[in-house]
Amino acid sequence: MVRVAVVGYGYWGPNLARNFVQADGADLVTVCDWQVDRLSAARLAYPWIQVTADYADVVADSAIDVVAIATPAATHYELAMFALRAGKHVLVEKPMALSGADAQNMAEEAERHERVLMVDHTFVYTSAVRKLRELVIDGSLGKLYCYDSVRVNLGLFQHDVNVLWDLAVHDVAIMDYVLGVQPIGVSAVGIAHITGQHEDLVYLTLFFEGGLLGHAHVSWLSPVKLRRTFLCGSQRMVLYDDLELSDPIKVYDRGVVVGSCDKNRHESLVHYRLGDMWAPRLDRTEALRSEIEHLLACIEDGEEPVSGPDAGARVVLVLEAAAQSMEKQGKLVKL
Amino acid sequence: MVRVAVVGYGYWGPNLARNFVQADGADLVTVCDWQVDRLSAARLAYPWIQVTADYADVVADSAIDVVAIATPAATHYELAMFALRAGKHVLVEKPMALSGADAQNMAEEAERHERVLMVDHTFVYTSAVRKLRELVIDGSLGKLYCYDSVRVNLGLFQHDVNVLWDLAVHDVAIMDYVLGVQPIGVSAVGIAHITGQHEDLVYLTLFFEGGLLGHAHVSWLSPVKLRRTFLCGSQRMVLYDDLELSDPIKVYDRGVVVGSCDKNRHESLVHYRLGDMWAPRLDRTEALRSEIEHLLACIEDGEEPVSGPDAGARVVLVLEAAAQSMEKQGKLVKL
Amino acid sequence: MVRVAVVGYGYWGPNLARNFVQADGADLVTVCDWQVDRLSAARLAYPWIQVTADYADVVADSAIDVVAIATPAATHYELAMFALRAGKHVLVEKPMALSGADAQNMAEEAERHERVLMVDHTFVYTSAVRKLRELVIDGSLGKLYCYDSVRVNLGLFQHDVNVLWDLAVHDVAIMDYVLGVQPIGVSAVGIAHITGQHEDLVYLTLFFEGGLLGHAHVSWLSPVKLRRTFLCGSQRMVLYDDLELSDPIKVYDRGVVVGSCDKNRHESLVHYRLGDMWAPRLDRTEALRSEIEHLLACIEDGEEPVSGPDAGARVVLVLEAAAQSMEKQGKLVKL
Amino acid sequence: MVRVAVVGYGYWGPNLARNFVQADGADLVTVCDWQVDRLSAARLAYPWIQVTADYADVVADSAIDVVAIATPAATHYELAMFALRAGKHVLVEKPMALSGADAQNMAEEAERHERVLMVDHTFVYTSAVRKLRELVIDGSLGKLYCYDSVRVNLGLFQHDVNVLWDLAVHDVAIMDYVLGVQPIGVSAVGIAHITGQHEDLVYLTLFFEGGLLGHAHVSWLSPVKLRRTFLCGSQRMVLYDDLELSDPIKVYDRGVVVGSCDKNRHESLVHYRLGDMWAPRLDRTEALRSEIEHLLACIEDGEEPVSGPDAGARVVLVLEAAAQSMEKQGKLVKL
Repeated sequence: MVRVAVVGYGYWGPNLARNFVQADGADLVTVCDWQVDRLSAARLAYPWIQVTADYADVVADSAIDVVAIATPAATHYELAMFALRAGKHVLVEKPMALSGADAQNMAEEAERHERVLMVDHTFVYTSAVRKLRELVIDGSLGKLYCYDSVRVNLGLFQHDVNVLWDLAVHDVAIMDYVLGVQPIGVSAVGIAHITGQHEDLVYLTLFFEGGLLGHAHVSWLSPVKLRRTFLCGSQRMVLYDDLELSDPIKVYDRGVVVGSCDKNRHESLVHYRLGDMWAPRLDRTEALRSEIEHLLACIEDGEEPVSGPDAGARVVLVLEAAAQSMEKQGKLVKL
Repeated sequence: MVRVAVVGYGYWGPNLARNFVQADGADLVTVCDWQVDRLSAARLAYPWIQVTADYADVVADSAIDVVAIATPAATHYELAMFALRAGKHVLVEKPMALSGADAQNMAEEAERHERVLMVDHTFVYTSAVRKLRELVIDGSLGKLYCYDSVRVNLGLFQHDVNVLWDLAVHDVAIMDYVLGVQPIGVSAVGIAHITGQHEDLVYLTLFFEGGLLGHAHVSWLSPVKLRRTFLCGSQRMVLYDDLELSDPIKVYDRGVVVGSCDKNRHESLVHYRLGDMWAPRLDRTEALRSEIEHLLACIEDGEEPVSGPDAGARVVLVLEAAAQSMEKQGKLVKL
Repeated sequence: MVRVAVVGYGYWGPNLARNFVQADGADLVTVCDWQVDRLSAARLAYPWIQVTADYADVVADSAIDVVAIATPAATHYELAMFALRAGKHVLVEKPMALSGADAQNMAEEAERHERVLMVDHTFVYTSAVRKLRELVIDGSLGKLYCYDSVRVNLGLFQHDVNVLWDLAVHDVAIMDYVLGVQPIGVSAVGIAHITGQHEDLVYLTLFFEGGLLGHAHVSWLSPVKLRRTFLCGSQRMVLYDDLELSDPIKVYDRGVVVGSCDKNRHESLVHYRLGDMWAPRLDRTEALRSEIEHLLACIEDGEEPVSGPDAGARVVLVLEAAAQSMEKQGKLVKL
Repeated sequence: MVRVAVVGYGYWGPNLARNFVQADGADLVTVCDWQVDRLSAARLAYPWIQVTADYADVVADSAIDVVAIATPAATHYELAMFALRAGKHVLVEKPMALSGADAQNMAEEAERHERVLMVDHTFVYTSAVRKLRELVIDGSLGKLYCYDSVRVNLGLFQHDVNVLWDLAVHDVAIMDYVLGVQPIGVSAVGIAHITGQHEDLVYLTLFFEGGLLGHAHVSWLSPVKLRRTFLCGSQRMVLYDDLELSDPIKVYDRGVVVGSCDKNRHESLVHYRLGDMWAPRLDRTEALRSEIEHLLACIEDGEEPVSGPDAGARVVLVLEAAAQSMEKQGKLVKL
């Protein structure tokens, strides 16, 4: 039985707690948060657990195998390092850290202590994103042309990070998992519209070898919530709408074909091809559930984490570069 | 009666011709195109008109008051200058020209001959875009935060210009008309995925004073056609979906408010406000019809063209800067 | 060359005229309407044609092979009979007639004179409805369970017929073509909300052997326009949204399966099956164009009309029965 | 403190339990179900409660004030009567009973013992349905023309009742609450497509005085889930889409107007009016939460239940009549 402590019981922590409680092979033993009202909430939900406001208790408790960290991003590094040094396995909220150097240290610390360090890139455990990866790997899409994502809604403004680290992190993690190639350059522009606040609107562009372009429009300033990702290849195109209950993924057998030159017509050379559309059935397992089952398998059977320290660090490096580019109004930052 | 020649009878020319035929106060007298089959098509539709493959005939014909140019972009400058010098009024397809210098010359030439030079920025004559401008001017939106547009579909690839000059030109023209301020910088990234073709995917960013950001995602590589524009202000937000038959414009009485600091909650300082949504009724007059009525009023009553040489030149200058930025992978180009 | 007269140049007539003009093998020679302004409109569009306000001219003109009747429903019978007796082929607007007896006479008259009599059931010539029929015939849907249609919009109120004869006629014609079986009973309820007007809202139910149920909700009183048809079978289900530009037809590999009895669970015996969704690519030929090509083939090559007098009469009989049921507030009328 | 027992812990019971736990002024003390695994589930969630498989324990427990019944419909009558006789207040799942006579008895029993009997017509406690009622009462819609509802999805098949009692009950309850008038007749047709099962598809029509028509299309055989209600009046029209997260209610300032007779035009007399569309902001309180707060207010402050025994009985009477009509293939049953 893997014994778990959930640290941070704000927005995301309760989801972690619930899934650990439901998972076979895991025991939720402790919830840690510095706010008393949250601890009472945890107790109301799971009366048998211990609660503490002191993170040191968690780290010191030899009965705890895994520390699941769902605190503000700025605290991830210290809390994770502390737990790793104490020989705990760690599941840390995205982003893994706020700098590539920190991410690197965390990766090394985990290796040194031979502990599992997993980053909670929840989306890569959804059946939809897994399907995207599958379509890329099996060549259904052909040569990849672009990844375009719109991830916008109204608020909530984070007080510790901007919308890049809050929302774009999802797209960077998804691209890292789905595209299977690393970006060679990053460009980002963003604006903070509310005085004294972080950027609430960011356009992020990732450059890859061979003309593949990745783009994410993330914002806290949209009247409607949108979660639309579009993946375009030479053979097929995919729309992934995370808010569509039935059939979130639509595969379009459409594309452009280079035809014979016909200078007489306004549209020359290139014509397009229209085929069927297909929406594969997806299983509905909660992503977090699959992720936690995977975490347990990594701990007990030595599986390799899909969203391990390397993936986590790659994502942080991209975001770090994006932050630099943003300060220079979109200047390309090479990776 | 204003006598009109339509030059170029490919994709757009027939729309111009039809609207001139239907307009009170205008006579379609000539259609000019270098392709014989198009001339026959014109004749079949309007048996009473003259047709010619020689543009010189049009310019030489003293019975013609207005030359409406719907030819490939690269030819706009020469054809328009030729007509203006001959004392014709000119309606020219967007983009007005392919360089700011050319656009400038055209503007001066029109002034020199005291002729009306209008650029066919069709969208600024739609009731939807007029409503957007109205909402900006009357302050309904409050301080402007961002303009975001997605204008994508599958093909048609143009053989003379890239998607920037083909599609983004619409957004630049709309921003020029609606926002009422000029950009101070431009950044654009784009890719040509089909060998030997122009860019088929472009992300364009316009920087304005005071943190207003404009962005357009234009592409010929989308499996579905999208025409969505989002205008966000401090007081209200607007979604404009040009493909939605009923209620293309939705005004959301939503926004963010700066609340009292509450360090205990994950979302700090800023909260959001949800109010009603409202879709104003729009009249359904065809934009081109309104535009042509306006053209006639400019010619006969000396009205100032809404999309005159200045607007046309401003749009070209932005696109020119965008093209430069695109060559430098998104480097900011100051205006 | 088949020479055609279009009779009635109001809402639908111009579409007929345009398609006859564009069709190979047909000549539009005459347009007939009792309203002078419509005749001028026809002339403006097709200056070479003859126009007349006197239907007798059309019937008397030996140069005319086909009379295409697009007049109010109440006039179809007399106009068609007059033309058939004069040896013309006839294309008549839906509904073919307002009584089964009239429809029967028309059928016999056409047979007597060995002339083609085709009813303009436009929808059965759309690629979407053809695909529906295909899916039924090839067994993809399994045993048919139900046909459900919503065909509503705001106005236009017809002054000669109610919404049953104006809109439900489409669904009855589509069912006649797609389901391949005849209803054994009809029930309909309807209301006229505007004093002195015809029913503007009707719910029509068709009963078939073996538990197949057909239903159409037709109305002139909807704020939004809907054209949604749902066809459900034991193996698959189809949604057909005629207003969806891309992918109007979606085939769902879903259904219910009878499982082992499990009295302990609230849902017993029956479980459901979720599979992929698939949207076949449809060609975009205008339905009326295909229909007119088919008409010409019937006249010249003796093809059997898909929407011939029998289909037309069957549709009228169902509507007639529905009208009777409506008078009795939905009492079942056997066929 | 009101002490509550939840009886039946299948699909709906846990929602009742959760809301009672969260409600101020209520204590969840007991959960009763004849299935052991459900009792353990209840215990896992609320370790402090008592659980029992014997309903008699609940009724006998003087520490229990309210019995909330979420068992199969067929058991509602006996369980409720038993509790009422024992002096308990009762919240009973919809439908209140399966016959008007039973409903009547329950109402009388509640009155006799001066106990609150509330039927769980959850929808009438949603902010959306409350808004519909408000729009009717304040005259915004003008004279009511029709209520049309589509409530379809795939399964779950109920083993104890057909889709009429499972889904149409919602629409009958909503109409009862919103329209403020009682139907004078009912007609229904339905089919059981799965051998040995109940009707899975039903079309229900309610006739009201003055030409108001109510209609509900309910089905367990739709590939997609739809929850669309349309309310049409002489002044305005409303669409209520219960699945639309933002703006479920849209009010259309549209309608038909009787114009001057114009025999020359195909559409005569009646024209339509297009105005703005408006989506009022709705609060997001969970309906069940409001309902339970209301229940407590009825018990403690003697408020009149919105969904009391009379409303519950009216709904059952309509469904009973619908069931009779269904046996006669839609024959009108007067009320």
